[in-house]
Amino acid sequence: MYDIIFEADTPAGRWFDIGLLVAILASVLFVALETLPELHKPSGKDTLAALSTAEWFLTFLFTIEYGLRLLCSRHPLRYAFSFWGIIDLLSVLPSYLTLIAGSGSRSLLTLRSIRLLRVFRVLKLWRMMNEADELAFAVWNARNKIVVFLAVVLVAVTISGALMYHVETLMFDVDKTSGVNEASQFTSIPQAMYWAIVTMTTVGYGDIVPKTSIGKLISALLILLGYSLIIVPSGFVSAELIGLKTDTSRHQEQHACPVCEVSIHLKDAQYCHRCGAPLR
Amino acid sequence: MYDIIFEADTPAGRWFDIGLLVAILASVLFVALETLPELHKPSGKDTLAALSTAEWFLTFLFTIEYGLRLLCSRHPLRYAFSFWGIIDLLSVLPSYLTLIAGSGSRSLLTLRSIRLLRVFRVLKLWRMMNEADELAFAVWNARNKIVVFLAVVLVAVTISGALMYHVETLMFDVDKTSGVNEASQFTSIPQAMYWAIVTMTTVGYGDIVPKTSIGKLISALLILLGYSLIIVPSGFVSAELIGLKTDTSRHQEQHACPVCEVSIHLKDAQYCHRCGAPLR
Amino acid sequence: MYDIIFEADTPAGRWFDIGLLVAILASVLFVALETLPELHKPSGKDTLAALSTAEWFLTFLFTIEYGLRLLCSRHPLRYAFSFWGIIDLLSVLPSYLTLIAGSGSRSLLTLRSIRLLRVFRVLKLWRMMNEADELAFAVWNARNKIVVFLAVVLVAVTISGALMYHVETLMFDVDKTSGVNEASQFTSIPQAMYWAIVTMTTVGYGDIVPKTSIGKLISALLILLGYSLIIVPSGFVSAELIGLKTDTSRHQEQHACPVCEVSIHLKDAQYCHRCGAPLR
Amino acid sequence: MYDIIFEADTPAGRWFDIGLLVAILASVLFVALETLPELHKPSGKDTLAALSTAEWFLTFLFTIEYGLRLLCSRHPLRYAFSFWGIIDLLSVLPSYLTLIAGSGSRSLLTLRSIRLLRVFRVLKLWRMMNEADELAFAVWNARNKIVVFLAVVLVAVTISGALMYHVETLMFDVDKTSGVNEASQFTSIPQAMYWAIVTMTTVGYGDIVPKTSIGKLISALLILLGYSLIIVPSGFVSAELIGLKTDTSRHQEQHACPVCEVSIHLKDAQYCHRCGAPLR
Repeated sequence: MYDIIFEADTPAGRWFDIGLLVAILASVLFVALETLPELHKPSGKDTLAALSTAEWFLTFLFTIEYGLRLLCSRHPLRYAFSFWGIIDLLSVLPSYLTLIAGSGSRSLLTLRSIRLLRVFRVLKLWRMMNEADELAFAVWNARNKIVVFLAVVLVAVTISGALMYHVETLMFDVDKTSGVNEASQFTSIPQAMYWAIVTMTTVGYGDIVPKTSIGKLISALLILLGYSLIIVPSGFVSAELIGLKTDTSRHQEQHACPVCEVSIHLKDAQYCHRCGAPLR
Repeated sequence: MYDIIFEADTPAGRWFDIGLLVAILASVLFVALETLPELHKPSGKDTLAALSTAEWFLTFLFTIEYGLRLLCSRHPLRYAFSFWGIIDLLSVLPSYLTLIAGSGSRSLLTLRSIRLLRVFRVLKLWRMMNEADELAFAVWNARNKIVVFLAVVLVAVTISGALMYHVETLMFDVDKTSGVNEASQFTSIPQAMYWAIVTMTTVGYGDIVPKTSIGKLISALLILLGYSLIIVPSGFVSAELIGLKTDTSRHQEQHACPVCEVSIHLKDAQYCHRCGAPLR
Repeated sequence: MYDIIFEADTPAGRWFDIGLLVAILASVLFVALETLPELHKPSGKDTLAALSTAEWFLTFLFTIEYGLRLLCSRHPLRYAFSFWGIIDLLSVLPSYLTLIAGSGSRSLLTLRSIRLLRVFRVLKLWRMMNEADELAFAVWNARNKIVVFLAVVLVAVTISGALMYHVETLMFDVDKTSGVNEASQFTSIPQAMYWAIVTMTTVGYGDIVPKTSIGKLISALLILLGYSLIIVPSGFVSAELIGLKTDTSRHQEQHACPVCEVSIHLKDAQYCHRCGAPLR
Repeated sequence: MYDIIFEADTPAGRWFDIGLLVAILASVLFVALETLPELHKPSGKDTLAALSTAEWFLTFLFTIEYGLRLLCSRHPLRYAFSFWGIIDLLSVLPSYLTLIAGSGSRSLLTLRSIRLLRVFRVLKLWRMMNEADELAFAVWNARNKIVVFLAVVLVAVTISGALMYHVETLMFDVDKTSGVNEASQFTSIPQAMYWAIVTMTTVGYGDIVPKTSIGKLISALLILLGYSLIIVPSGFVSAELIGLKTDTSRHQEQHACPVCEVSIHLKDAQYCHRCGAPLR
């Protein structure tokens, strides 16, 4: 039993993993589909009922899985309070909570919020990715760079947001004489900072855009500056990752030469490239 | 004959390749132009007829090419069922199918779908790119990273989509009192997930944008988080490619071992890493 | 006293730093919130007054900090005219200036501009980031590349802006016959250059888009060209950073030479490259 | 004379270069400003006249510069037909052509086109950038990768454009019943290909967006696929540049060790790190 659930190497464990993967994806899909407005019209009643049934079936499966994991674990309590234990619990609890919360008629909003929590089941996917650890490790290693990156972005966003707010609200009276008659969309600094974030990350929705000539000029300069500024920290994170990757690929699989103690060899080397001594 | 079609080194083969390239590009252009609404007005009848004639001429050429390839191939059957054989067949079949399908009057939609299949001719371009193999190899090598990347994006998109759906539909009643009177564009979780994908990849159409203050705040945080998150896996893929490139460039400049003829060595190698013979 | 303010290693210094960080973030938040239009309605009066009080309290704190720094510094004058001295002064001065400027009734605009200057307090954050120096150093090292990058962008933006302006205003008469009846949005070359910058950096607001077929064709080609063009200089900056990083990581893991104490060596070095003494 | 114009090392040459830089930037600015619609109203007459005068003054300067370059050059004819010679000629010719073309009253459009050609003066900037050669060299080295990149984009754009055109026009009848009543914006394959380019490069104007549910689903998948696909070739170009950079930085400034002939040393090495022999 333990083998099937916790090990992915046995055939049974592999099938268990694939089944779990399908169940997670289906479950998240059902939660998402349930919110489609088409299904809340009278014509969508049957589909909604079918979704609800399927959902309860999957919740039942996840409950069994959670029970089995608790049962099989050598330290059930430690598992229950571990990261994965909480995720597993969170993926079944909301469904049962809706039964309780649903009894009160006024708690429709709370009910809906709880139902949405089921979406966190998608985190169970994470456990299946072996490479995710490497990724998490890389992010963890680059955490200082990411904090610096976010701080740089914060400084840039605050200053350019305040500047654009000032320019767009100030210059509007000047420009009105020359044909611009829409209201400025930079209504406050927080709004302007939202614009700056959307712009500097090159998302560029276009819901807030400069309307005045001077606003366009400054915004074009800010875009160029922001773009130059943002590639530097991204380059830093890339460099961190590439350094990590290079180090890992070079070191992990190699032993030191027994004669000259050079530790860097090609992965399939059989003789030391410095002194010619056999490596293994 | 074989030389002309399959080898690009002879002058005739080179001319054949260039001719084929022009034919493919022209053919795809014609298929695309045929759908222009201007040509389906009475005034565009002549142009449409000319396009159709040119199209049939190119189909005829591709049919000959397919026949010759079948004829010249040492294993005609193996070619017919190979990837390129199927692409070559797919690039002529739809045109002939329209003749059959066109006879039924109700099958206009099917007819149009089949005609569009001709666009797959563009895949014939792929065969001409020598570097494409290297690219395909790099993508293949990075396939694990890409799957992890897609899984990370899926998790991020699901959670942020559900969050934004909840915030925007919930907060709308609160914000309505303070001047926002447009309907929320986050009508369902799938819609919100579509928004999250469009946002996190920094495409940012702007057809769906947060309208409430709290929605803008959360969306700005999600953009920054998503941006930080997305550069890490892209950096990983880049690192993979750069590692590959570095490995390749390190290997390429080396001489073969005089004994075992292995040609890949570390740059400062003095002994062959396979057989231990001195390299120089 | 000196230790607390200028050193981050002692516990007191650490607490001082954390307090300062919170004060800076809160202060910038207050300045931003003050501009929300909701607070300038009668119902927001109380919140506005609270924000103003909190703001004055923080200004008072920053004034004390500035005074202490002046007092503790070994060379008060040098500090006062240093970069950080000016930033520290700028973060308190605007608040006091509003008291003076506020007396004249016509200077509302000036008053507002001065109040916005307080946003520069966010620059005080910079001092706390140890990694920021490394980043600033990298940007400084890459300054030539960034200038070249900006010059390339300027050339590309000017030429493609002029081209699109010409095409969109010229072709409009031709296309009008085929159903396009909106006015061209490329009203002048500066406007078209703003479009080109927004497009080439992949921000893509969508406030200015080509309307004619030929304009769309040329703009699609320009996007591809611009995209190819822009990744080359970004790659350059990345390469610069990765080179820097690689150099650093290569050096860091080495021991000092026992004779001349130079600590930076190639990883496989056997003799000191400065004095020739054997390293190990 | 020759020194001043062609050499940047002498003080006079440096001043000449700075003057030329300012003249080029001013000239391009004037050409751009001339097209502002505000200046073509009666109130802008004076500014327009001033711009025209300034423009003629700069044209006069560029003419002198062209004449001097022709005069000073050792091979005037070779200069006249060189790349820079043609650029220099192109930067003065259009202004004179407007005098001739202006006489005919119907040639207003031609006149305007010719006037716009003056914008190519910005190319004169290129000559001043020493680093531009390195950049051009890198682009030239990466030309194969860029062609592959463009071919991959072409294939992806064609297929996804045809797919989205089919889905959006076909599915519209199905979706109309469920509340979508705007017309599809994917009116033809070329239009859909324009959408695909704008989307895959993450520009994302938002002037053309999918309206149907199935269109949004497919477009979200295409965005993810396109994003994964596009970072691979960009990574390739980056890798090329990084390889170039690494090679250059490592090799150019180093000599081989006179004893053991190892050619790779730290830049400031004074002794060989392999055998300890003095390097210089």
